[in-house]
Amino acid sequence: MPTDAEQACFEAGIKFGSLYHQFAGTPVSPESAGSLGRAIEEAIENQPHCVDVDVDVRTDRIAEELAARSADYTELTGRFLDVEMRIEYADVGVRTRMEMEDDYPLMKLVAVEE
Amino acid sequence: MPTDAEQACFEAGIKFGSLYHQFAGTPVSPESAGSLGRAIEEAIENQPHCVDVDVDVRTDRIAEELAARSADYTELTGRFLDVEMRIEYADVGVRTRMEMEDDYPLMKLVAVEE
Amino acid sequence: MPTDAEQACFEAGIKFGSLYHQFAGTPVSPESAGSLGRAIEEAIENQPHCVDVDVDVRTDRIAEELAARSADYTELTGRFLDVEMRIEYADVGVRTRMEMEDDYPLMKLVAVEE
Amino acid sequence: MPTDAEQACFEAGIKFGSLYHQFAGTPVSPESAGSLGRAIEEAIENQPHCVDVDVDVRTDRIAEELAARSADYTELTGRFLDVEMRIEYADVGVRTRMEMEDDYPLMKLVAVEE
Repeated sequence: MPTDAEQACFEAGIKFGSLYHQFAGTPVSPESAGSLGRAIEEAIENQPHCVDVDVDVRTDRIAEELAARSADYTELTGRFLDVEMRIEYADVGVRTRMEMEDDYPLMKLVAVEE
Repeated sequence: MPTDAEQACFEAGIKFGSLYHQFAGTPVSPESAGSLGRAIEEAIENQPHCVDVDVDVRTDRIAEELAARSADYTELTGRFLDVEMRIEYADVGVRTRMEMEDDYPLMKLVAVEE
Repeated sequence: MPTDAEQACFEAGIKFGSLYHQFAGTPVSPESAGSLGRAIEEAIENQPHCVDVDVDVRTDRIAEELAARSADYTELTGRFLDVEMRIEYADVGVRTRMEMEDDYPLMKLVAVEE
Repeated sequence: MPTDAEQACFEAGIKFGSLYHQFAGTPVSPESAGSLGRAIEEAIENQPHCVDVDVDVRTDRIAEELAARSADYTELTGRFLDVEMRIEYADVGVRTRMEMEDDYPLMKLVAVEE
C-alpha cells in the first residue's frame, strides 16, 4: 500500500499538471495577468487536499516578450508562471514550486512534512 | 474576397471557440465562479477585434449540481456559462451570445451591424 | 438577420478557436506528431458544419526546436501547426487556413463560396 | 529531502493532471474515440519518467450518452476515460489508474515498487 506521504505527493503532482495544462495557452497581457493569476489560484484550490495555491503571473516577462515582438498579448506558458502550492493529505503536508530551469518549467517537490 | 461583415463574423467565431475550449474543464465552485468569470472576460478581450466580453458563470446551476452530487466542486462546462461578446472589424460590429439549447451550449450570431 | 455566408464564417471561426485552444500546450515530439494531428482532425470534424479538417503537425519545426534546446519534447503551439478547414452552412462553403505571419498563428478566411 | 518513491509519486500525479486537463472538453464520438485515445497515450508518454500510458476512450458510454441526447458528438470527460499509467523514477516504479467512483473520475496510486 502506498504511504500517506506517497499519496500526498501524488496529489501534489495532480494539482500541478492540472494547473499547467488547463491554463497554458490562455491569451494574456500585463493588464489581464492579475485576474488570470487569481482565477488559477481559486480554481485549483477547489481540488481535494489542496490548501493553498499562490500564482504570480510574471508581468515583467510578458511585457518584455511583447516589446520584443511588438505584440499586444501572448499565450500563457511556463516562463510566465511562478507557482507555490501546499497540499495536505492525512497528516502529511507537501510544499511544491514551479520555476524555470534551462527554459523548461520544472515542477518541484520542495518538502514533505509529516 | 470575403466581405468585412464575413471577416467580422469569422473573428467572432474564433473568440467563442477559444473561450470555450480554453476554459472548459476548469475546476469551479460557487466561491470561485467570480474570479473565473472575470479572468475569462479579460483573457478573451486581449484577442484582436474583441471589444467586450461579458461572462456570467452560473453559480445557481453550479450549486444545484453540487447539491445533487454531494460534491464540493465541478468542472466548467457550457451549461454553467452565459456569454455575450461584441466584435468590431473595420466598420462592422458583431454581437454574439452563448446560451443553452436542448442541452447543448449554442453559440449564436445575434446581430451584424454595418 | 445574419446571412448564410455570415453564419458560415462564424461557424468557421468557432472551429479554429476550438482547435487551437483545445490542443495548444499538448506535449509533442516528432514521434507523436502524427497521432496528434490525426486526433485533432477527427475531433474537430465532429463539430457541426465542419466537413473537412487537414492538420499538418510540423515535425521539421519541432525537430529544429528540440535540437536548439537539447530537449526531447515541446508543447504544441501555433508555429507547429498548418491547418486547412472546410465548413459548409446552408448553401455556403467556407475555406480557411492557419499559417504563421510575423510569429503569430494567423487564422484566415480563404474563400466564401455560395 | 523527498525520497525517490515520493518523487516518483509526484511525477505520476503530474502526468494524470496533465492528461485530464489537456484533453477534457475535446469533441468526441464513437468514430473519433480511437484516434483520440492513441494521441493521448503518445502525448503523455513524451513527459519525463513516463514509460507507459494506456487509454481506453469508452465508446460504449459515449454511444449511450449520444443516444440519450440524440446528439452526434459530446465532450471528453472523466466518465469516458479508463487510464492506466506506469512511471519510473530512479529505481522506483509507480502504477496508477483512473476510474469512476461515485460519478467522479478518481485518480489512484495502485502500487509503488522499489
